[in-house]
Amino acid sequence: MTLSEKKLDFELVLEKSWERRTAFLALNPAGEVPVLQGPDGETLCDSTAITELLDEQHAEPSLFGKGPLVRAETRRLVAWFDLKFHREVTRHLIDEKVTKRLQRSGEPSPAAIRAGYANIRHHLEYIEYLMERRNWLAGPDFSMADVAAAAQISCNDYSGDVPWEDFAVAKTWYARIKSRPSFRALLADHVPGIPPPKHYADLDF
Amino acid sequence: MTLSEKKLDFELVLEKSWERRTAFLALNPAGEVPVLQGPDGETLCDSTAITELLDEQHAEPSLFGKGPLVRAETRRLVAWFDLKFHREVTRHLIDEKVTKRLQRSGEPSPAAIRAGYANIRHHLEYIEYLMERRNWLAGPDFSMADVAAAAQISCNDYSGDVPWEDFAVAKTWYARIKSRPSFRALLADHVPGIPPPKHYADLDF
Repeated sequence: MTLSEKKLDFELVLEKSWERRTAFLALNPAGEVPVLQGPDGETLCDSTAITELLDEQHAEPSLFGKGPLVRAETRRLVAWFDLKFHREVTRHLIDEKVTKRLQRSGEPSPAAIRAGYANIRHHLEYIEYLMERRNWLAGPDFSMADVAAAAQISCNDYSGDVPWEDFAVAKTWYARIKSRPSFRALLADHVPGIPPPKHYADLDF
Repeated sequence: MTLSEKKLDFELVLEKSWERRTAFLALNPAGEVPVLQGPDGETLCDSTAITELLDEQHAEPSLFGKGPLVRAETRRLVAWFDLKFHREVTRHLIDEKVTKRLQRSGEPSPAAIRAGYANIRHHLEYIEYLMERRNWLAGPDFSMADVAAAAQISCNDYSGDVPWEDFAVAKTWYARIKSRPSFRALLADHVPGIPPPKHYADLDF
C-alpha cells in the first residue's frame, strides 16, 4: 500500500514465511515478511524500516506527515495497530480461525475468539474517537496510521468479524480507505480455500 | 538511555503500568510505558515514536545513523530486539520468573523457561555474527540497535540468565555498553525484593 501510494513500481512475490525456506532466511534472518528487494539489489526487512526508508527517499506524498509532532503521532498509532490491535484482536481471531486451518496446526480456541470479539469493539471505539476529531487517524492527512489500521481491519473483515452495524463512524473511515486505488488490489487478494464474505471488497458495504 | 546519550535533562517517574491508573491512561490510552512529557507540556507515547522524535529534534549524536540505509538497518535491528528477542527470550524468562512473582499472577511455566534458555543462545550468536563484522550492531556507530539489544540483555542478565561463558564476543560488546555513562544509572536500578546477581553492575564480569 505504501509503494502504491507513492506510485512506485513493484512486483509482489508470495512467501509462505512459516515454511522457513533457507533462501528466504538468507534474505531475512528474522524469517518474516515483508522483505523489499530494491532496484540496486539492496534487501530491506521489517515493515517499519521499509516504510520509513520509502518515506525518506520518496517524500511526496508523505505518509508520516509533516513536522515532528505529527510524525510522532503517526508512529504512535502505527505501533498501536501493528502491535496492540494485532495482539488483542487479530492474533485471537485470524490466527485461531484462519492460520490454524491453513497450517493445520490445531483447533481454534473459543476463549481466544471470545476475547478477540470483545477487544475489537474497544478498538473500533478508539478509531471513532480519533475520527470524530480529525480528518484521518493521525491528523489532517492520510498516513501510515491509516495504512496500519486498515491492514488489521481488512484481515478481520475478511473473516467477517467486524461489527460494522454498531460503528458508523469507523465504517465511513474504512469506506474512504477502500476507495483508494492503493487499497483496491489488496481487496482482490484471496486466501486459497477461504473466500471472503460478499461485502468484503464492496465499496458500499 | 536515549535522553542520556543526547545529554538532555530528564526526571524518571515510576509507573506501575499494570495497575492501569486512570490518570496514566489519560496520558497514554495504550497503558504502556515509556511516556515522555516534554518541556512544553506535550505528551509522547511509544518508545519508537519517542526515540525517532528525539533523534529528529536533537540530531547530534545521531542514534539512528547517517544515510537512509544505515537508518533502515538500525530500525530493522530495533524491531528485532524490541519484538523478536522479547517474544522469544525476555517474555519467557522475565515474565515467567520476575513479573509473575511481582504481580502474584501465578507460577512460572517450566516449558516457557526452557524455551527462553534455548532461544537466548541463538540471539547471542546473532549478536556475535554482527559484532564480528561491524564496530557496533547496526554499523560503524553506536545506535538505537545497541540500546534496544542492551535493554533486553540487561533484563535477562538481571535474572542471571545470560550464558556469558560461551559468548566472549557478545560479552565484549556488552562490556562496552556497560561502560557508557548513559547505561550506568540503569544498572543501579533494582527490582524491589529481587536483588540482581553480583556481576550484574560490574564492568568486569
